[in-house]
Amino acid sequence: MSQVFVDVGVSLDGCIAGPNRGPNNPLGDGGLGVHEWMFRTAFFLERIGRPGGERSPDDAVVEQVFARAGGYVLGKRMFEEGEVGWPEDAPFRAPVFVLTHTPRAPWPRKGGTTFYFVTDGIESALAQAEAAAGGKDVRISGGAETIRQYLKAGLVEEITLHVAPVLLGSGARLLEGLGPADLGLVQT
Amino acid sequence: MSQVFVDVGVSLDGCIAGPNRGPNNPLGDGGLGVHEWMFRTAFFLERIGRPGGERSPDDAVVEQVFARAGGYVLGKRMFEEGEVGWPEDAPFRAPVFVLTHTPRAPWPRKGGTTFYFVTDGIESALAQAEAAAGGKDVRISGGAETIRQYLKAGLVEEITLHVAPVLLGSGARLLEGLGPADLGLVQT
Repeated sequence: MSQVFVDVGVSLDGCIAGPNRGPNNPLGDGGLGVHEWMFRTAFFLERIGRPGGERSPDDAVVEQVFARAGGYVLGKRMFEEGEVGWPEDAPFRAPVFVLTHTPRAPWPRKGGTTFYFVTDGIESALAQAEAAAGGKDVRISGGAETIRQYLKAGLVEEITLHVAPVLLGSGARLLEGLGPADLGLVQT
Repeated sequence: MSQVFVDVGVSLDGCIAGPNRGPNNPLGDGGLGVHEWMFRTAFFLERIGRPGGERSPDDAVVEQVFARAGGYVLGKRMFEEGEVGWPEDAPFRAPVFVLTHTPRAPWPRKGGTTFYFVTDGIESALAQAEAAAGGKDVRISGGAETIRQYLKAGLVEEITLHVAPVLLGSGARLLEGLGPADLGLVQT
């Protein structure tokens, strides 16, 4: 059975990005430290067309996350910020559904990624991603606001948090407004 | 060299206790889940005079934390709430300095714990704990407000956080008001 999942790094104070985010600072101040564990892996660097990286248990974790996903959902800001850093063959290599208010034709990229722009809401984006995923899982990739919308709507079946030993102080709090009834423990 | 340290569990949203704390609910709603890993250990249960518990890596961690501490600092609320749950021979077996506004004579308990009541502030309590610790470390035990006061004053040399896979939604946020400049990574 195909699953809807989230897999994301958070700081000790529950942020996935730091303060002062913007086009030139997509992760916000200090936010790189939250996701560095992933950016260091050989798998992820290869996916964004960069050399180097470490073969490690983390590397296998990241590879598995991408391997299980047959479709992705992104918020518009994450898409726009990602475009700057991703190579022409974007890292997904699968259909990606971008939440937006601006209609746009599908945008196929080299390597198997096609971006589809969805203007009729999160449920529609998820349904389209599930239909396109070919029986594989759907990853709600981010950013924080997008993930929170799906969590609050009860549409996420599994969330994996990678807690980084970093304190941001402020920023995009992933779990703000959610409570114990919204999450249950599956596995540590 | 003697060190001032904090060693405490936190939820995924950075709380050491849940909402609705009170005399009959010292950890707040859901707060037990944050500290359960410790309450399950054979070492801690023995320290509070209860049978059972697990011998595990967690058990060794808790034992080491108590072994290194020669003195403790507690906030008044934690002391008062603790009194209800601790046996006559309180779990510290060392001098404990309680921050309070109400003068009170030292209160020796069976088993080596003596509570001293400090009315002239956090620096005084720490200095007294250091003097009494016999070269061992001083643990700032809690609660959240007490730990935060010491962190903000720059008086904590080491903090260990045990992140529990629990979401509380609200409660006593340990790191509220602190930022990246206040904490650096020593060890993961």
